[in-house]
Amino acid sequence: MNPDHPRLLSAALDAVRYRKPRTVYFVACGGSLAYMYNQQYILDLETDIPGFVVTSNEFIHRNPKGLGKDSLVVLCSHSGDTPETVAATSFARKKGALTVAYSFKVGSPLWEAAEYGLHYDWGPDSDAYEHRAGMALRFMFGLVDTLQPNPKYKAALEAVKNLQAIFTRNKEKFAKAADVFGSSSKREPLVYTMASGPVYGEAYSFAVCLLQEMQWVHSAAIHSGEYFHGPFEITDFDVPFLLMKTAGETRPLDERADAFMQKYSKKVTVVDAEEFDWTGIDSNLKTYFSAPIFGAVLRVYAERLAEHRGHPLSVRRYMWKMPY
Amino acid sequence: MNPDHPRLLSAALDAVRYRKPRTVYFVACGGSLAYMYNQQYILDLETDIPGFVVTSNEFIHRNPKGLGKDSLVVLCSHSGDTPETVAATSFARKKGALTVAYSFKVGSPLWEAAEYGLHYDWGPDSDAYEHRAGMALRFMFGLVDTLQPNPKYKAALEAVKNLQAIFTRNKEKFAKAADVFGSSSKREPLVYTMASGPVYGEAYSFAVCLLQEMQWVHSAAIHSGEYFHGPFEITDFDVPFLLMKTAGETRPLDERADAFMQKYSKKVTVVDAEEFDWTGIDSNLKTYFSAPIFGAVLRVYAERLAEHRGHPLSVRRYMWKMPY
Repeated sequence: MNPDHPRLLSAALDAVRYRKPRTVYFVACGGSLAYMYNQQYILDLETDIPGFVVTSNEFIHRNPKGLGKDSLVVLCSHSGDTPETVAATSFARKKGALTVAYSFKVGSPLWEAAEYGLHYDWGPDSDAYEHRAGMALRFMFGLVDTLQPNPKYKAALEAVKNLQAIFTRNKEKFAKAADVFGSSSKREPLVYTMASGPVYGEAYSFAVCLLQEMQWVHSAAIHSGEYFHGPFEITDFDVPFLLMKTAGETRPLDERADAFMQKYSKKVTVVDAEEFDWTGIDSNLKTYFSAPIFGAVLRVYAERLAEHRGHPLSVRRYMWKMPY
Repeated sequence: MNPDHPRLLSAALDAVRYRKPRTVYFVACGGSLAYMYNQQYILDLETDIPGFVVTSNEFIHRNPKGLGKDSLVVLCSHSGDTPETVAATSFARKKGALTVAYSFKVGSPLWEAAEYGLHYDWGPDSDAYEHRAGMALRFMFGLVDTLQPNPKYKAALEAVKNLQAIFTRNKEKFAKAADVFGSSSKREPLVYTMASGPVYGEAYSFAVCLLQEMQWVHSAAIHSGEYFHGPFEITDFDVPFLLMKTAGETRPLDERADAFMQKYSKKVTVVDAEEFDWTGIDSNLKTYFSAPIFGAVLRVYAERLAEHRGHPLSVRRYMWKMPY
């Protein structure tokens, strides 16, 4: 862990306290963008401050009229050198917005561009408390409490301390189901993912990063509330779906989609947040902790799929190999 | 046309003038939701008022803390009886928000639920001015001008008068290209769609309503700015993409995706808004009129695909046939 991290997090929150932003933009690309959905959800339910999730290059070219000195822009790039996200940071800062950027690389171009850089650990030895999952939750609960004093703040910070143990226990708990998914899906050219609420970001991440990017398997993240307004017509006995049922407010949407799919497809895999081992997390926080736990658990599903397909998650044909 | 319509539109705008909303939610499902992206884009570029696009059932269950008497909620259901959208209208109204709902059916449950119902015409004999496309543009420019006096307002209202002629000319202009798309795609089990900015809604609509729902063809709408952050790894010589290039601010994103796809896929169909016949529309309005023109033109692409596949656009296996 970067020893400066607690100071940096508290400096960013001090800046929020001083600047009193009236809108928040969550800006990133791909997997980092997917991560923003849970953060926007926390803001949307715990404060009356509007928050937007937008991909970096769209943010720059769209140039929203509301972006300015009253805005907070939260950005993330894992390596800290995604060109569009670095450019979005400079762009937002030039417009007078308060910029806070997450990266696991200290001193990356993203850090140089942002007013406040937040560090997270990475790799097999890092604890989830210092990992992106824990850091993002600590920042978001700090943010909502700074904007409008929040009764869930203390319990949330305590819960983050238990995150690593929760990840470990749930990865074990779902290991067998993950292997069944990997084995039974290995010849599928397409797997749809589905979720709602803050977990939609995890369905998006699994579709675009794990299936399309890392497995070259076709996919689309379907919002379970939208399923009945078009996508459900492609449902058939041989069409595979991976549904992530949230433990939060939008669960009835997932349940309705689940009931329909179970009738008409023989290839539905359900990962249910209500079946997670929640020890160490208050039940009124489940809604905000579902997404990061799905992130940890679904990584195992992707690893088992990769193993059964003989196609490692690290293989690429274009990314990092050529200019684009 | 409903003779009451001009009075209803002006009454809704009077209510906006009086209530001075500070946030706008655009709430609908499926194809009607797709339509909201362009409207949110107009708000985002012409005012500093935050606007959100959200599917009806997510809106209700999410229950954003910012929703209340300072909110305007714009809803749409074509038939006026989509249960989630009717429920979202009642929900928003109960929370004290100003509700404006579009439907082509006068006196529908949606109209009964909303404070202000706006009517649009439908069917082959209707003029685009009174059609959803024209009505939504007239409402949105009326809205932004009411919120903050807008220099583009008058030109936009004039341009809407030319919309029917523009639709007709562009449907003819692209008829041959649409037939080539239909013929060459007829055996494809999957076609990705792609766009950015306000046109993203059209890519979403084509993917979920025209391909998944009406053709039972797999699809996903890829945001052209997100393409390089995951999805591009599934690109191969035999993977089909339908790219809609906007004439607006986010065009560089579409151009970058186009250049990459042309190198690695042999099945890229591009529909370019810069090739539309724009007679009758000011060049600084192209960004806001791209989406509705794509809507009209791409309908022809879907019709030609349906013809070549022998699968009429009206066929359903679940929708309207069973409870779900």
